[in-house]
Amino acid sequence: MNPEQSLQDFMNACQVRVEAALDARLPAAAKLPERLHQAMRYSTLGGGKRLRPLLVYATGQALGVAPDVLDGPACAVEFIHVYSLIHDDLPAMDNDDLRRGKPTCHKAFDDATAILAGDALQALAFHVLAHDPALAVTAEQRIAMVETLAMASGSLGMVGGQGIDLDSVGKELDLPGLEAMHIRKTGALIRASVRLVALARFGLEEGTAERLDRYAKCIGLAFQIQDDILDVESDTQTLGKTQGKDQVNDKPTYPALLGMAAAKEKAGDLIDEALDCLKPLGAGAESLCGLARFIVQRHS
Amino acid sequence: MNPEQSLQDFMNACQVRVEAALDARLPAAAKLPERLHQAMRYSTLGGGKRLRPLLVYATGQALGVAPDVLDGPACAVEFIHVYSLIHDDLPAMDNDDLRRGKPTCHKAFDDATAILAGDALQALAFHVLAHDPALAVTAEQRIAMVETLAMASGSLGMVGGQGIDLDSVGKELDLPGLEAMHIRKTGALIRASVRLVALARFGLEEGTAERLDRYAKCIGLAFQIQDDILDVESDTQTLGKTQGKDQVNDKPTYPALLGMAAAKEKAGDLIDEALDCLKPLGAGAESLCGLARFIVQRHS
Repeated sequence: MNPEQSLQDFMNACQVRVEAALDARLPAAAKLPERLHQAMRYSTLGGGKRLRPLLVYATGQALGVAPDVLDGPACAVEFIHVYSLIHDDLPAMDNDDLRRGKPTCHKAFDDATAILAGDALQALAFHVLAHDPALAVTAEQRIAMVETLAMASGSLGMVGGQGIDLDSVGKELDLPGLEAMHIRKTGALIRASVRLVALARFGLEEGTAERLDRYAKCIGLAFQIQDDILDVESDTQTLGKTQGKDQVNDKPTYPALLGMAAAKEKAGDLIDEALDCLKPLGAGAESLCGLARFIVQRHS
Repeated sequence: MNPEQSLQDFMNACQVRVEAALDARLPAAAKLPERLHQAMRYSTLGGGKRLRPLLVYATGQALGVAPDVLDGPACAVEFIHVYSLIHDDLPAMDNDDLRRGKPTCHKAFDDATAILAGDALQALAFHVLAHDPALAVTAEQRIAMVETLAMASGSLGMVGGQGIDLDSVGKELDLPGLEAMHIRKTGALIRASVRLVALARFGLEEGTAERLDRYAKCIGLAFQIQDDILDVESDTQTLGKTQGKDQVNDKPTYPALLGMAAAKEKAGDLIDEALDCLKPLGAGAESLCGLARFIVQRHS
């Protein structure tokens, strides 16, 4: 089997796995309040690349942590990600109608329900980490995981990146400024996805957590550069979200700041650095390697 | 000293204490992203009755848990409460301009910043519970506290109550329906404020946690009934928020369903039941008793 085929199989298997895990952890659509639970399920289920859960399972593969232990953390990071998309798409924020190829939450429901669905998904993420019975770790490890996810999600992490993003519209943002934004906005949760697994592993060899963190930092930034590139080069149908929004909204991007060729080169360099970090982990890191390459080769 | 004076002293001392504790745990206003952090601080600091922190400290007094251990939990429940107010006041929700006697967060900043400030405060609440060094409990206790707060905040707790509230506007909601809403909307976080302290206490006597939980359930409902009463009988200046909103928005309330006299009687009965629950706790529960009475005697 060639590496690309094996990555595709891994991705398919994880996507099926996390879909079932998310479904099982979301409140039933018939449970009161029904409309809220329907909105939570609508936005979470049935779509998305599931990059963050993929990173959770792939890191588990590299460190020898079983997938069933990791369903909880995989769902927790995805719940945070989905809530951030719901709020990001609101009229008061990016005002987007399309997400993962279907109407955004506030379009399918209404603005108020979308706000609450996002809020409830964030709470659910922390509940899953604190409660999930299959997460066979000590209470100390669990607490470290909650702390990591909270830090990655908050005003010094993901939400902070969105705050910088808000403030940057129509402004001149230089390269360090753009990087400071993306390290928080998408980078923090991607790093947390990898770090949660390192925290779930007993007796990690020295230096491994740091190498994995460096890997995650590199692919997080590369992911964002590729996002910026796709916003220029792809089309709305392939993306499943509105193409060309960055330029319309006068948002700073890597292609705009560096030029398209240099942006692509930078993304490639980051992936090379990420792959370097994985070398000491050997064959177990195959899926992590594949995901790094996938990030700059994807079309949506 | 008469009991009323002693309660007032207790409340003043706790309000000063929690203000400093909140200030210390909020990111500095000068920290990137500044506008987001300013909005978080604006909405959290300098106002409010701080009922939930008061309940945390009063329960600590009753159970012999020191206030410095409880600053973290007190801040965590207040961060959740404040985030819910910020989101509740948004144009897409209650569309309110005034809160705690000053412009609401989205009025003082903007809608997008208000959404993000709420999101970040929720993450901060969980970070504080997971991380706070002064919270001298075991990791098992901390995890139970995170789980309790997450459950109380999510779609089966506070946010769920707001969801029922949304769905109920313009509809006929009967008394059980109204109660199901309020048990979640305000009741869940009030109960969590008391329960977090029971979880922080080592070797609690059998039945005490259950009695405290019953106390909290009663005062939570009484609090909401009194809120409904004040929305009819008070004025905007005293309330610090817009008076008469329930009727304008055609929201179901206790006075509307029961009549004003019966609503007041029900609130009084609930407080009597709450006070009964505290009897076995003796003199240490004095502040919890005082807070129960305060809830139905307050004018704002």
